Amino acid sequence: MKELTVTIVGLGLIGGSIARSLKSHVKKLYAIDRDKSIIDFAVGQGVIDPSPKDPLCESDVVILCIYPAAALDFLRENKDRIKKGAVVTDVVGIKTPLMELYNELKPDFTYIGGHPMAGREVSGFINSDGGLFEGASFIMTPCEGAGEGAVSVVEAIATAIGCRIVIRTTTEDHDRIIAYTSQLPHVIATAMCDTPLLVKHKNFTGGSFEDVTRVAKINEYLWAELFISNREYLTEEIDRFTKSLGRIKTAIEACDSDGLMRIMRKVRQDKEMIDNA
Amino acid sequence: MKELTVTIVGLGLIGGSIARSLKSHVKKLYAIDRDKSIIDFAVGQGVIDPSPKDPLCESDVVILCIYPAAALDFLRENKDRIKKGAVVTDVVGIKTPLMELYNELKPDFTYIGGHPMAGREVSGFINSDGGLFEGASFIMTPCEGAGEGAVSVVEAIATAIGCRIVIRTTTEDHDRIIAYTSQLPHVIATAMCDTPLLVKHKNFTGGSFEDVTRVAKINEYLWAELFISNREYLTEEIDRFTKSLGRIKTAIEACDSDGLMRIMRKVRQDKEMIDNA
Repeated sequence: MKELTVTIVGLGLIGGSIARSLKSHVKKLYAIDRDKSIIDFAVGQGVIDPSPKDPLCESDVVILCIYPAAALDFLRENKDRIKKGAVVTDVVGIKTPLMELYNELKPDFTYIGGHPMAGREVSGFINSDGGLFEGASFIMTPCEGAGEGAVSVVEAIATAIGCRIVIRTTTEDHDRIIAYTSQLPHVIATAMCDTPLLVKHKNFTGGSFEDVTRVAKINEYLWAELFISNREYLTEEIDRFTKSLGRIKTAIEACDSDGLMRIMRKVRQDKEMIDNA
Repeated sequence: MKELTVTIVGLGLIGGSIARSLKSHVKKLYAIDRDKSIIDFAVGQGVIDPSPKDPLCESDVVILCIYPAAALDFLRENKDRIKKGAVVTDVVGIKTPLMELYNELKPDFTYIGGHPMAGREVSGFINSDGGLFEGASFIMTPCEGAGEGAVSVVEAIATAIGCRIVIRTTTEDHDRIIAYTSQLPHVIATAMCDTPLLVKHKNFTGGSFEDVTRVAKINEYLWAELFISNREYLTEEIDRFTKSLGRIKTAIEACDSDGLMRIMRKVRQDKEMIDNA
């Protein structure tokens, strides 16, 4: 790692947090952002190194930390500036579109999709935090035929920024799983707050309400892109969840205490098991 | 407060936590529990005072910290042992059944329903915590004709245990509101975990999943009682939430980015407003 030159594209919450936690592990850390003042600020803070004229063509690793559609545009426009044999990775919450583009472009670098499972309900470099990925899972989706060297580089980056578990899977599996583990919680929090009762009863809430609704402070631009890009898997998950909700409602309506407790007991046992794992 | 003798009925998570935070504020603090060893243990720890033969008949305040149905039974069986003019309050998450029983029994004490909006996904005195109610809301539902003296006593207790906001409302309003702010989050967490995917994909989760599912480690006996007792309001809330979910799903399916962002933007703004209030 110590001999690598890395460029982060997009110095927002995630890009900034990666920069802060990665800086000391690499030889040179550059960043590109459409807002030049952020780059100057980050250089001034010592979070990144001052960039050469074209950091892309000097970098062994490029990490795309921009919105899904912007990442596609960036790859399309800059594929020829990226060094031959470099490793390109990203942090986009959905993996199929970038991989499809990569397979179509067939560029001279290796693409290893990345998804650190951490975030915050605020955005921008100003909120970036070197501890953001501490203990998080990192999902990696290597392109077909990716060499072990390229895979190891991304693995080393994931570990360097603090991720505890690095999982390797396909883009399809990633997108299907993430519909349940990440997108559905955001849809639920949004639906939970999609009522005038939210403001009206704000003093009647406790920890359970706070937790279920935390991510309702959502970045609508990012998440609308993510939801729509993954709409097939996500609507399947919404349907599955709605069915469970209906099953619970039916038991409540019928005063079926045993049936209700059976559902809750199984859920509690499973939840305890994974929390203690 | 310093001249009051208080008895806590049920020394579990909530009763124990109240005892720990209330002890220094009252003259005598007794407790009753069907498990005598818990009483001895709590006395030994200095959390409560050693009880006289019948603490109920010597107490100015009685706080019922037991399950909903058990609270009804306790009131029915012990109403004549409670001191004339005493204040009886409770922590039960649904308020109508106890108030109906009180109005039917017409006993010689004043009943002020209580609901501290705090809890944890564990139970028992062993998990009790004097800081549990720190900053929480406390909802109070006084009986018809309750004197201001009685109301003040419960208010003082709520403040003493750390609650930041004390709200006075009717039992009907409490039960309707709580269906949204407390019961629905528990139903959602349960439905979210009601799938084999929970265990299968445990390494693919991040903060949003952890938060939405936290209370799925649910006490099924308590919550089955609460859900079924409040089934009319709760099923209305499940229906309202399911409709919102459907509206979001429709926008995702139709790739209606503007419509989706409109819902998310309003939700985010409302959520920011109440979080900053």
